[in-house]
Amino acid sequence: MALSRQAVASTSPGSSIELGCLHHSSHGRWAYAYNKDTFHLRIRSKKNNVDRVFALTGDKYDWEHHHQELNMLKVATDAYFDYWEAEITPEFKRFSYGFRLETDTQTVWMLESGFYTEGLPAPAGGYYEMPYLHEVDLLQVPEWAKSAVFYQIMPDRFANGDPANDPEGTLEWGEPPAYDSFFGGDLQGMIDHLDYIAELGVTALYLTPIFQSPSNHKYDTVDYGTIDANFGDLDKLKQLVGLAHSKGLKVVLDAVFNHTSSEFAPFKDVLEHGEDSRYAGWFHIHDYPVQVVDGKANYDTFGFFSGMPKLNTAHPEVRDYLLDITKYWLKEVHIDGWRLDVANEVDHRFWRDFRLAVKEINPEAFIIGEVWSDSLSWLQGDQFDSVMNYPFSDRLLKFFGTDEEVDPGTFAAQIYGLLMRYPRQANEVLFNLLASHDTPRVLNRLGGDKQRLKLAVTFLFTFTGTPCIFYGDEIGLTGGDDPDCRKCMIWEEEGQDRELLHFYQDIIALRKEHEVLRTGQFRFLQSDPDSRGLVYERWNDNSRITVWMNNSSSPVTLQHSFRDQHRWQDAFSGEPVEMDGEQISLTLAPFEYRILHSQ
Amino acid sequence: MALSRQAVASTSPGSSIELGCLHHSSHGRWAYAYNKDTFHLRIRSKKNNVDRVFALTGDKYDWEHHHQELNMLKVATDAYFDYWEAEITPEFKRFSYGFRLETDTQTVWMLESGFYTEGLPAPAGGYYEMPYLHEVDLLQVPEWAKSAVFYQIMPDRFANGDPANDPEGTLEWGEPPAYDSFFGGDLQGMIDHLDYIAELGVTALYLTPIFQSPSNHKYDTVDYGTIDANFGDLDKLKQLVGLAHSKGLKVVLDAVFNHTSSEFAPFKDVLEHGEDSRYAGWFHIHDYPVQVVDGKANYDTFGFFSGMPKLNTAHPEVRDYLLDITKYWLKEVHIDGWRLDVANEVDHRFWRDFRLAVKEINPEAFIIGEVWSDSLSWLQGDQFDSVMNYPFSDRLLKFFGTDEEVDPGTFAAQIYGLLMRYPRQANEVLFNLLASHDTPRVLNRLGGDKQRLKLAVTFLFTFTGTPCIFYGDEIGLTGGDDPDCRKCMIWEEEGQDRELLHFYQDIIALRKEHEVLRTGQFRFLQSDPDSRGLVYERWNDNSRITVWMNNSSSPVTLQHSFRDQHRWQDAFSGEPVEMDGEQISLTLAPFEYRILHSQ
Repeated sequence: MALSRQAVASTSPGSSIELGCLHHSSHGRWAYAYNKDTFHLRIRSKKNNVDRVFALTGDKYDWEHHHQELNMLKVATDAYFDYWEAEITPEFKRFSYGFRLETDTQTVWMLESGFYTEGLPAPAGGYYEMPYLHEVDLLQVPEWAKSAVFYQIMPDRFANGDPANDPEGTLEWGEPPAYDSFFGGDLQGMIDHLDYIAELGVTALYLTPIFQSPSNHKYDTVDYGTIDANFGDLDKLKQLVGLAHSKGLKVVLDAVFNHTSSEFAPFKDVLEHGEDSRYAGWFHIHDYPVQVVDGKANYDTFGFFSGMPKLNTAHPEVRDYLLDITKYWLKEVHIDGWRLDVANEVDHRFWRDFRLAVKEINPEAFIIGEVWSDSLSWLQGDQFDSVMNYPFSDRLLKFFGTDEEVDPGTFAAQIYGLLMRYPRQANEVLFNLLASHDTPRVLNRLGGDKQRLKLAVTFLFTFTGTPCIFYGDEIGLTGGDDPDCRKCMIWEEEGQDRELLHFYQDIIALRKEHEVLRTGQFRFLQSDPDSRGLVYERWNDNSRITVWMNNSSSPVTLQHSFRDQHRWQDAFSGEPVEMDGEQISLTLAPFEYRILHSQ
Repeated sequence: MALSRQAVASTSPGSSIELGCLHHSSHGRWAYAYNKDTFHLRIRSKKNNVDRVFALTGDKYDWEHHHQELNMLKVATDAYFDYWEAEITPEFKRFSYGFRLETDTQTVWMLESGFYTEGLPAPAGGYYEMPYLHEVDLLQVPEWAKSAVFYQIMPDRFANGDPANDPEGTLEWGEPPAYDSFFGGDLQGMIDHLDYIAELGVTALYLTPIFQSPSNHKYDTVDYGTIDANFGDLDKLKQLVGLAHSKGLKVVLDAVFNHTSSEFAPFKDVLEHGEDSRYAGWFHIHDYPVQVVDGKANYDTFGFFSGMPKLNTAHPEVRDYLLDITKYWLKEVHIDGWRLDVANEVDHRFWRDFRLAVKEINPEAFIIGEVWSDSLSWLQGDQFDSVMNYPFSDRLLKFFGTDEEVDPGTFAAQIYGLLMRYPRQANEVLFNLLASHDTPRVLNRLGGDKQRLKLAVTFLFTFTGTPCIFYGDEIGLTGGDDPDCRKCMIWEEEGQDRELLHFYQDIIALRKEHEVLRTGQFRFLQSDPDSRGLVYERWNDNSRITVWMNNSSSPVTLQHSFRDQHRWQDAFSGEPVEMDGEQISLTLAPFEYRILHSQ
């Protein structure tokens, strides 16, 4: 069967299927193993251009006796495309496949070898292939991470539990921070406030670096094997992790493996001995002597910071050294995972070795990379479980922001676009945040508007993925760019926004109460570009939750019909929701939201 | 700067830039390191829809002082898209980037965060990223493979050099083969004919399996550590490889690691001892006792062949065993690479370990996977150097075939589409073939038409990639599907097509003479869908070669203008080519081709 050029050439926009917009490839986000028995296929077509899509699957070694046709579901729509998905459990862990796309007037078959308009070629010829489902290649994410709620802590700024270990020049708690300020926060401070953390409802801590370092943020490590003395010591960390575990809290530490401090002993050795140093190969030195002239280092650095020389993670000694460090903290302190700083600038081979080392000790350890851009290369099963989802916070804060520059239709398209970037199991544990130590505070990013903040936080906690709160956001801490976003936690209740804190507690509790909010599927039900209202849904086999939002300062009435679901109740109050036949109609006050539940 | 929804919505087909057809992602075939200093970027736009494309690149840590704008070249056009490419050597091994696309009436900026029609957002915000060029992650292919010409040999069918080692029931040389025929070919036979091989001009041998196995093809291995006694022994292999090396011929062996023979000792142990066998984990056993009922095995197999149990390559013992085998032959016999059977059905993690093991012993060893479909997943630097390029042979044999169902325009689109599948360094060593032991003979696939065969072979040897000849194709051996395609080599000169042999010798010699035919870039100059003529070009900084073909049984006149190149000569005869100003006009007889050279 030949590629029918005539038929292709006659395709005209508007009426015919736009072949140039169709996209699939047999790897990455388009075709992947979801678990040890199941593959997912995705295909994309021009928005509103195709009515039905079928996956035609079969075993290439005996197509005749082992083939089936699967209806694909339209699961997402962004600005340009519809995305269709199917789940397949092949009999022999392998299959070949193609697609049939239909409108009422046209049928197109799409195989790896091209498009066909007059029927299919001979079985298995030119088809896409999923050659064999190897569990060892599968992206397996920690089950606990799907239900976790994280709390990010900068130790120097969270709580000072032991003034005896304060660094020289420690400022008074709560003063405005400068880049180089120290406030004396420490591990004992966290221990002292574990009850506060547990009562907030979070289930996991992510601590920014705690190893020996001259800075307050400690992203320039001097000794990876030692707790910074201003924070505590090994026993203190063990105590913190033990207590956290006893309260059901996991603990994830920050690994800064891209670069070190220039005070790191091997780098100092290179400074001293030049190319004769046995550590010369540990860094990326351009020439000798190693020096900084007019602010320019003659070695690779993080950014242009001469105080942060980049490690050569491809060097076997560096790799072994860092993997030993990695394993030591997992074994010695039983931490529950690693957040990886500047993860995208470290080589992929290192991260593959890293994953094997980590998962061998604790298969349920959680690996979160700091990658701000498209992270698919790290989420294929061999490297990370998750990445910090900054693209998500960017979209969220624009939509809920005071500029009101993004309408619900555009927002829905953006969120769907993000969901289609990665395999579903990655989405289920993507590290979703609204702010961190590297951004302004969420309240500042939302113009100081608490109503908008509550909508954004509600979206965060009712969306797919693993949410994270930056310490203090829950009590209304404010701050612009670094260092302002790294202000001290406020512990006096009169300084805290207690109402906001209770809001956080409630929404976290709701997420923990409803499995469907953690692992259910997601879809938008209403996202009219001409409205400021939004309705979306999470669902699984047992339960549905719909979230209704008015993202504006005027009242909005939202309506949606539910063909097969006739009993809804308010998820917080339990009050039944009045329905007009199949329809729910809600009038929401400015910035009001409702969460409805149905079983 | 916001995504301008208005401008996007106003885009209409035909006049405006079709945003839905634009495609880029920051990994895989779209963005990759080509060598230790250089990145390649590719972007795709709707065919004939965009006039100019620029890559806007900069260092995200200091965009202001380190940014540049690069003109992207249109390097390929397939049925739907134009592909644009740029080469970038960043100052600090890293860069962020976006694109600007222009027509005479419209400008669109494309970043990872979306499309912009009114200018760029703030520096480095939402840009694509190439975080750091790590040599350890780079796809580095053997330099020699770029210039190699391979010759594939099935030992049982090539030459019987030692009748003493013939298996029982050996048929007379040249009889029609059945599936289970033996003909007594062996390593000594190859040794005896090394001069023939060297005179053909090829520079490398790929031998189908030679390890102990009950079959004639030996794709069901019984002992990976022993040369099959019917082929010879270790000393004989060393002699063959030593002699081959002395004649400048590399030797690549076939590794069948997906599955074994059911006579493989560990599998026999499982048959005997069931789940108590210490090898039970070496295979994919569904339940015990291990058995075959009604032809169905209760263990995973290659295809549905119960005699070929699939190995569990994720098992550490299996991995170590196979890697020891891999290393043994590299070290003991100094082979130059491995061809990997059914490579796509083995897990990726195994192949990563395999590559490390192979390249540690011989960084210039060549790794070629048998993958018939899109192979990008294996060509990212961590697994293979190359794959057997069956999609290429399919396109070629359809275009040059007797059906004449594909016109030059469609063919050019298909070839460009294949070139855009992989990074350039993979294309440079892609294992291009017209036939193998798994397909009918090339002459049969071309309707027995020697003129068409010569055109196809000429294309093969003047195209990017590493060409391979299946033994006997060069003397006109015929044969349909297996076992007919595996007939004995003909050694009596009267049985050989000597004219065809000389043709092969000449075209191989031409490729070896001209660097530009091996590593130069490729483009079509003429591929009019309404003609049967074709002109294409290879070029580098020093040299150009154009190939002119008439793929029809009627005369064809082809013309092309060369603005900057006014002296052309016939690449074989050296005769100057007459030009009319800037134009060459050639009238080609049916199926005639000309190869012109210019320096």
